[in-house]
Amino acid sequence: MSLLLNPAMAATFPPPVMEARRWLQGATFPPDRPLLNISQAAPVDPPPLGLRQALADAALNNDAAHLYGPVLGLPELRAEIAAQWSAAYGGAIRDDQTAITQGCNQAFTAVLSTLAGAGDEVILPTPWYFNHKMWLDMQGVTAVPLPAGPGLIPQAEAAAHLVTPRTRAIVLVSPNNPGGVEYPAETLAAFRDLARAHKLALIVDETYRDFDARTGRPHDLFADPDWDDTLIQLYSFSKAYRLTGHRVGAIVASTARLAEVEKFLDTVAICPSQLGQIGALWGMRNLAQWVAGERDEILARRAAMTGGFAALPDWKLLGCGAYFAYVEHPFAMPSPDLAKRLVHEASLLMLPGTMFQPDTHPEGARQLRIAFANIDAGGIAEMFRRLAAFRA
Amino acid sequence: MSLLLNPAMAATFPPPVMEARRWLQGATFPPDRPLLNISQAAPVDPPPLGLRQALADAALNNDAAHLYGPVLGLPELRAEIAAQWSAAYGGAIRDDQTAITQGCNQAFTAVLSTLAGAGDEVILPTPWYFNHKMWLDMQGVTAVPLPAGPGLIPQAEAAAHLVTPRTRAIVLVSPNNPGGVEYPAETLAAFRDLARAHKLALIVDETYRDFDARTGRPHDLFADPDWDDTLIQLYSFSKAYRLTGHRVGAIVASTARLAEVEKFLDTVAICPSQLGQIGALWGMRNLAQWVAGERDEILARRAAMTGGFAALPDWKLLGCGAYFAYVEHPFAMPSPDLAKRLVHEASLLMLPGTMFQPDTHPEGARQLRIAFANIDAGGIAEMFRRLAAFRA
Repeated sequence: MSLLLNPAMAATFPPPVMEARRWLQGATFPPDRPLLNISQAAPVDPPPLGLRQALADAALNNDAAHLYGPVLGLPELRAEIAAQWSAAYGGAIRDDQTAITQGCNQAFTAVLSTLAGAGDEVILPTPWYFNHKMWLDMQGVTAVPLPAGPGLIPQAEAAAHLVTPRTRAIVLVSPNNPGGVEYPAETLAAFRDLARAHKLALIVDETYRDFDARTGRPHDLFADPDWDDTLIQLYSFSKAYRLTGHRVGAIVASTARLAEVEKFLDTVAICPSQLGQIGALWGMRNLAQWVAGERDEILARRAAMTGGFAALPDWKLLGCGAYFAYVEHPFAMPSPDLAKRLVHEASLLMLPGTMFQPDTHPEGARQLRIAFANIDAGGIAEMFRRLAAFRA
Repeated sequence: MSLLLNPAMAATFPPPVMEARRWLQGATFPPDRPLLNISQAAPVDPPPLGLRQALADAALNNDAAHLYGPVLGLPELRAEIAAQWSAAYGGAIRDDQTAITQGCNQAFTAVLSTLAGAGDEVILPTPWYFNHKMWLDMQGVTAVPLPAGPGLIPQAEAAAHLVTPRTRAIVLVSPNNPGGVEYPAETLAAFRDLARAHKLALIVDETYRDFDARTGRPHDLFADPDWDDTLIQLYSFSKAYRLTGHRVGAIVASTARLAEVEKFLDTVAICPSQLGQIGALWGMRNLAQWVAGERDEILARRAAMTGGFAALPDWKLLGCGAYFAYVEHPFAMPSPDLAKRLVHEASLLMLPGTMFQPDTHPEGARQLRIAFANIDAGGIAEMFRRLAAFRA
């Protein structure tokens, strides 16, 4: 009996991170050349002791940590986001313009569900974040690719040509996954103006905001008193506070939008993990200094990546920031083949650019994403030794 | 500027539990008549100390508890489900036929996404579980109501008349929410046969299986060696182990189905909460005796409900089991009006039957769901005193 399948789901590609992980099956790594897994953006260490103690204390002594909470999240955490964001972005963000989700992927799916259904269109710059593309595919929403072009900074003028009567939103990720680049404030403002002019939503995923190399606010979108007629911001607590296993993300949007998001979250989530939220709140209140140190470390690794590729002239560094370097490789083979060979011949697991592009974009075959945040300075040096030694 | 909305989301009703909670706003409850909230099926106490200690220990000492885990869940938890289920249901369930989700609501949305898209149809007996209906609405899938009729046991023969070329699945909840009734094994087998004959999926949500009054296995569906060509079972760890705030559910289905579920979960969840899974696994391994005691307590409350309504002859008990009594009230007013009056005049919050029926089914206006598991014997006695004293 063949499997009864929703055609939209059947047409959605399998999870790239898992597909890459399958390449490790059967691979053996010599003792002097252990695997360097730079495929997924994921902290490899647990959160600081204080946060873990806060979780343990809540597990033992806070009954509410085990019971249902509000669909849109703990009021204290929503208030903390509103307060810290208002200060950081120079804007006015109210508690009821924030919501908590089971991770930032869920934030995206919840927001998109309120905006677009089968037959609608959403503009995504390429290279794109594959889970965004997967959600649109499984919903029957058309992902309209906007090639970011040189410097990997998408242009609002180019996006303007892609707007149709079915367009519902433009999705930007800054600092970018997979490209690593930080979008200039003017770029974001231009997209906001475009979206507002066409009555579209502008979704800005700032999962990697805590590792932006720039000082001060990264954009002025929240300084606009009418920001919530157009802007929807997404955030993740996973990276800054090393809470990946707890699944906590956030949405900042209009209260009216969040009333619709609430329907989705009630149906899919009921509520976010209470312990995860308790950890996120403890982190926001106590770990600012620690996160600053984490940022310094990521920026040092980023500098090591930039320096390393400068010494590998056959490779081209297209973008570097957040947790990622996005590179063009020098070999006469498609990037998926190269990525598999790098597993076996260099004990390196990275993702091919084809995973971040539609099949119609041939440049993906020349590109790779390297999640450098996962490895320290020694690991980065070792990675470059192996890349330099690799022969196609 | 009006809110840009996906019409399917706009047409989805707001979460009933939250709407009911809003009825409490502005209500005052006299000191001698405190609120009895019997609207939501939710344990009011935390899990046993041993489970809380296991969570605290993991938070402090298990680094993996804070990091991403596999999309389909912890292998140990999947293996535990496979082993315990195989024994309990007299069937063969492999590890790779199980998956873990962020709660049972998410299990439903994941499974349905693999089966049905906009324009497809899914058969739901009425009264239905509102989050099932909400998900179908927001996906543009038509929920085809199958009136359960007397005894609240749906009939496969009646369902057969509702099957069309667009039908993708039949969804059963047993023990039932909101109806409380436990479906006979023959009923489930008849639905399985119907689904198989039409190549549909049969989804059986057994969230309340741990509180079934019957001894032995509740059905023989897993004893069928070909069960996985038709059957998809859903489960929740929230009720048995009091883990509502941790969001842990499960799917038992064919490995091929779970490969599609994995796409959805990777995109929406990335992975379930690690601590929640650690708690669920600890519970499965250590709390069998404790859960048996919990079941005894729920069955005692159920007996108190049955006895109480027998002494209120104007009320009709339509179904009683799991966490719920589903009743027909004797008053000449629609159940939403009655529910609101009961808040103010009897300090009772229960959900009207209209929340579990399509607008076209007038019987919802005569019905109420009472989540009796939330209150102890004293609370149940007090509830009956207030119902007996209520005058319309």
